[in-house]
Amino acid sequence: MEQRISFASDNISGVHPAVMAAIAQANAGTAPSYAEDAYSKKAAGLVAKLFGDKAIPFFVLTGTGANVLALKAMVSSYHAIVHSHIAHIHADETGAPEVFLGCKLRPVVTGENGKVTPELVKPLLKEKGNPHHNQPKVISIAQTTEWGTVYTPDEVRALAAFAHENDMYLHMDGARLANAAAGLGTPVKAFTTDAGVDVVSLGGTKNGIMIGEAVVFLNPVLAEHFPYIRKQGMQLYSKMRFVAAQFIAYLTNDVWLENARHANAMAKRLSEGIRNLPHLTVIRPTEANGVFVRLSPQHSHALQKEFDFHVIDETEAHHDVRLMLAFNTPAEHVDAFIAAASKLK
Amino acid sequence: MEQRISFASDNISGVHPAVMAAIAQANAGTAPSYAEDAYSKKAAGLVAKLFGDKAIPFFVLTGTGANVLALKAMVSSYHAIVHSHIAHIHADETGAPEVFLGCKLRPVVTGENGKVTPELVKPLLKEKGNPHHNQPKVISIAQTTEWGTVYTPDEVRALAAFAHENDMYLHMDGARLANAAAGLGTPVKAFTTDAGVDVVSLGGTKNGIMIGEAVVFLNPVLAEHFPYIRKQGMQLYSKMRFVAAQFIAYLTNDVWLENARHANAMAKRLSEGIRNLPHLTVIRPTEANGVFVRLSPQHSHALQKEFDFHVIDETEAHHDVRLMLAFNTPAEHVDAFIAAASKLK
Amino acid sequence: MEQRISFASDNISGVHPAVMAAIAQANAGTAPSYAEDAYSKKAAGLVAKLFGDKAIPFFVLTGTGANVLALKAMVSSYHAIVHSHIAHIHADETGAPEVFLGCKLRPVVTGENGKVTPELVKPLLKEKGNPHHNQPKVISIAQTTEWGTVYTPDEVRALAAFAHENDMYLHMDGARLANAAAGLGTPVKAFTTDAGVDVVSLGGTKNGIMIGEAVVFLNPVLAEHFPYIRKQGMQLYSKMRFVAAQFIAYLTNDVWLENARHANAMAKRLSEGIRNLPHLTVIRPTEANGVFVRLSPQHSHALQKEFDFHVIDETEAHHDVRLMLAFNTPAEHVDAFIAAASKLK
Amino acid sequence: MEQRISFASDNISGVHPAVMAAIAQANAGTAPSYAEDAYSKKAAGLVAKLFGDKAIPFFVLTGTGANVLALKAMVSSYHAIVHSHIAHIHADETGAPEVFLGCKLRPVVTGENGKVTPELVKPLLKEKGNPHHNQPKVISIAQTTEWGTVYTPDEVRALAAFAHENDMYLHMDGARLANAAAGLGTPVKAFTTDAGVDVVSLGGTKNGIMIGEAVVFLNPVLAEHFPYIRKQGMQLYSKMRFVAAQFIAYLTNDVWLENARHANAMAKRLSEGIRNLPHLTVIRPTEANGVFVRLSPQHSHALQKEFDFHVIDETEAHHDVRLMLAFNTPAEHVDAFIAAASKLK
Repeated sequence: MEQRISFASDNISGVHPAVMAAIAQANAGTAPSYAEDAYSKKAAGLVAKLFGDKAIPFFVLTGTGANVLALKAMVSSYHAIVHSHIAHIHADETGAPEVFLGCKLRPVVTGENGKVTPELVKPLLKEKGNPHHNQPKVISIAQTTEWGTVYTPDEVRALAAFAHENDMYLHMDGARLANAAAGLGTPVKAFTTDAGVDVVSLGGTKNGIMIGEAVVFLNPVLAEHFPYIRKQGMQLYSKMRFVAAQFIAYLTNDVWLENARHANAMAKRLSEGIRNLPHLTVIRPTEANGVFVRLSPQHSHALQKEFDFHVIDETEAHHDVRLMLAFNTPAEHVDAFIAAASKLK
Repeated sequence: MEQRISFASDNISGVHPAVMAAIAQANAGTAPSYAEDAYSKKAAGLVAKLFGDKAIPFFVLTGTGANVLALKAMVSSYHAIVHSHIAHIHADETGAPEVFLGCKLRPVVTGENGKVTPELVKPLLKEKGNPHHNQPKVISIAQTTEWGTVYTPDEVRALAAFAHENDMYLHMDGARLANAAAGLGTPVKAFTTDAGVDVVSLGGTKNGIMIGEAVVFLNPVLAEHFPYIRKQGMQLYSKMRFVAAQFIAYLTNDVWLENARHANAMAKRLSEGIRNLPHLTVIRPTEANGVFVRLSPQHSHALQKEFDFHVIDETEAHHDVRLMLAFNTPAEHVDAFIAAASKLK
Repeated sequence: MEQRISFASDNISGVHPAVMAAIAQANAGTAPSYAEDAYSKKAAGLVAKLFGDKAIPFFVLTGTGANVLALKAMVSSYHAIVHSHIAHIHADETGAPEVFLGCKLRPVVTGENGKVTPELVKPLLKEKGNPHHNQPKVISIAQTTEWGTVYTPDEVRALAAFAHENDMYLHMDGARLANAAAGLGTPVKAFTTDAGVDVVSLGGTKNGIMIGEAVVFLNPVLAEHFPYIRKQGMQLYSKMRFVAAQFIAYLTNDVWLENARHANAMAKRLSEGIRNLPHLTVIRPTEANGVFVRLSPQHSHALQKEFDFHVIDETEAHHDVRLMLAFNTPAEHVDAFIAAASKLK
Repeated sequence: MEQRISFASDNISGVHPAVMAAIAQANAGTAPSYAEDAYSKKAAGLVAKLFGDKAIPFFVLTGTGANVLALKAMVSSYHAIVHSHIAHIHADETGAPEVFLGCKLRPVVTGENGKVTPELVKPLLKEKGNPHHNQPKVISIAQTTEWGTVYTPDEVRALAAFAHENDMYLHMDGARLANAAAGLGTPVKAFTTDAGVDVVSLGGTKNGIMIGEAVVFLNPVLAEHFPYIRKQGMQLYSKMRFVAAQFIAYLTNDVWLENARHANAMAKRLSEGIRNLPHLTVIRPTEANGVFVRLSPQHSHALQKEFDFHVIDETEAHHDVRLMLAFNTPAEHVDAFIAAASKLK
């Protein structure tokens, strides 16, 4: 069966061969359940190495789980979590934070690059100390953002400093952290631990892992109750060795980084191919593995006949569409899209 | 590295080869995410076939997730869920039901066989209509029970009839449903759909699947809102094809049933081997894949030097221990335990 | 001790003498607790009379309680409640809806009159059926709005029709329902029951009652589980006769309506007195008992030396302030403010 | 209308005249809302005086509210609250703790006096550190207990010491704290602050107050977030002066203590009157204002024709009934019951 070319998401892709091989190899003998096994310990060590000595990682299963459980370690129900109006935790998780945390999500309207800044958060501080309002306690940012942009280490550092000055924490939704690292060309540590982030949700599933994410505490005090939170949050997988084994392969030989570099390179290729076309406008900087394009509804419909992608905003005049590139997207798929787009009139 | 023999749980075991092969085969090309793929549809059809035409299955990730989300489809926060005092949902899920459902768990003290009966639930009905009490709305039973016993179809039917007469639902925690089916020697449908069960949590991970469970609605009205519940419950896995592919293999060629039959046969072998020994007493009927034994603390400690298992109750006079057998437990492991036990004095 | 003149809120006022007398008279002998007494039954009858035969009222204690518990009868945690961005349930209740309902609040940005319209809600309907989003289930409007404006019966009817066409409910936060009725000059029934509202939170405390609110079900099906919700929501007051007695007095001889008429008249007097002044601009229509005024920060500070009121929005160029009038605000207080304002330069 | 004599509860009684007078007197002029008024400050000072200098009181509205919100200040959702199996928070609050706190209630089966002891709690400590179980964090006791018994200062001290040694807190549900103080004949401070209690729910409504309870923090660190908890918990009453004024009257001239002494004296009179009768057995020590009696069902039914009271347990052989005495129960009511009981045969 021939498959349509899809840029719908990076989670339509499969599993990296090295990761798949590691799953099969982990299927030998018995192993203690609930993350008490040797694979889990080794994988935790490798994750910690990415972030620095004090990092404390816990493996979980889904991206929503990673975000919500990470936040649970930082808030009580009378707190507020401040985030971009496009944040996944707010827009695409069916209220998982509200039901599990009980607290309020407070979007700030971010600008063209989709990034939260201290200036945007500042006005909410006037609610501090007022018993009629949830108290701002966490700034949650996505790295990369939902618009494919990447916070620089300095931008993260400014947010962390602002958060800490105001008795708040900084959380990073790193569903695409690898793509951010590849985009920045810096070690992960530079824009996380060294920049003052408190807790990271480290994605894997969008970048070549079959299943698995990690919640990584850079502020170790916050990790204290996480074992209970993980179990209560329905994310303590009994045969954890099979998640851990994937992370071991993923973090060995720079698989994670090479995967992200490829996806980013494909995004760059697509973005540059489109940039020369009269009918399509790249509307966000292409800094990682997503390309955001504005085009007319009729052009959008024409391309949808051949390719899968999401229209994330539409008016009568235009469609804004998102094209996601994966660790294993072939260059031919990108070129096919550019070719089709160049034939539009 | 030589491994100790472990009877600690059926979740210390690995993955059945056919299931593992299916995972690898599913890693071809792209697939729509969030259970919209062809594997997920096929797997859902196979699960439905086990339970009958009207069954509506949804795949989730963990056993806790399957139970809590299944219950969410049946209760509001002012309801109560009635269950055995040994129920996993009560004793071993760190309050996941309380935080996600907001409702009250109401244990009834079950007898030697660990089974809930209408007579045990009946006294709670006096709270019906009284605004000072959570209203009993679900009876939740485990099949097999946490003590390795199995409800007969008639016992289930009596509970379902009682539940429905009193405006309640019957939920079955089927983490070990396959072992129950193997133990009863009847089709699954006979003690679920045909007996009046409303919703089943269908386990896979304890019987040869790598990761994955299903919530199966036999009362289809209750399924209506489950897609939102699954996402909100952090259990909507993006690359669901990899769970679905496992279930396809698991439900083909009776893998599920053969696995359970083996585990049960090993339990029978162990139980019979022990039954002849003077120092050990089998304290629960061995109807599935768990063997429950009473022995002296010193004998328990002696055996723990060689074997892994859980002491689930202890006094100065005795240890009550649980020995779990898995789909791939070798007969030699069982015989080694019997041999060691027979040497105790 | 002389008191400063305050327009800070209508809840700084005291209790109407008839209501206070009723409290004292209710203090005779014993009465069954938990709303099973004769006062509670009589008061419920009087409330029902306001709304029509099928209305089912329940008394509660606070306005937040009335709103949150009313909404609880309509939603599950995977639902969304749509409301104005200025709604009290969103902006001033410290996340009580989130923690108690677990669901998501979805503000729509309302225009100058602060009113929700079907057109504003319509774009959210595209999330219907998508498991990644909370499902819109309730439109909640405030009557009067937080900006002192009043929905006409036709406006309410349009919202109710829209809600019902889309499988949603219409909730009315009637903390100031009496002021709305007085402002419209129509019976309460005309803009509630007859217009299709499903549930009303009926305020009392802001209009001459000491303590007490009511949740009134106009859609009787929704009332079924409310007795449990009220107790679970910590609002089932044991000596309910003392709330009920207040409502009996309040609803006898049109005390409620006369109180609201006075407050509204005072607002009109204030609004008209200000309208002629060069430095102050009335920025919202004065349709009930609140007057919203824009003036310079220095003028605002000058007036704050003499009067209490809330600055609800401020920039370097102006203050937007809220002046609330109560059932017992003396005309002299209003005139004193106008006089002071007219002396500003 | 003649009223039946009722011993159903102490909340069927009315309001003490001094408290009622205080309510009327507070109805003068305006007062800042939300507990920012002078009455609230004065009342808080008087409550603090009962408990010692460091006590921090907050007024709330209902007993359920006082208990649940007090507990909220001490737990996260992964904690467990340990309490007697007869505790009001467990048996009679429709799951308000579960929905608002998300955590698990862990009853221990208390003996004939209904009192929790360190020995009863100790076995739960084995769950400490195990991620599969809610972590015990609070011991919650009722003073008086639901069976009308009273913890001695030494008993409280032992529980507090045990709690603190094990990183737990001690909460006291003092819905009938005044009756306990009267029963013990000691200052409140002796069996609360001095004994190591962390937080008290101080009742008023059952002892002559119209409406109002207080949450009193004896461990001041725990009070930090309570203003947000109170608002989120729907218990921040806008016209708080009317609750505060009641507490001022209640705590002046020992009204609270005299009320409790009267109720206790009536209980003693009833208990002693019954003790001589052949058909009735007083089954709990009469240490405060409740009398618990066992009698035959036919005798119970005979007395129910004339008097109101609750049957709290029943078998074919006997009824266990509860008779509650209030601050204003006339001695004649007690004597009428004794007379009626003595005529039974």
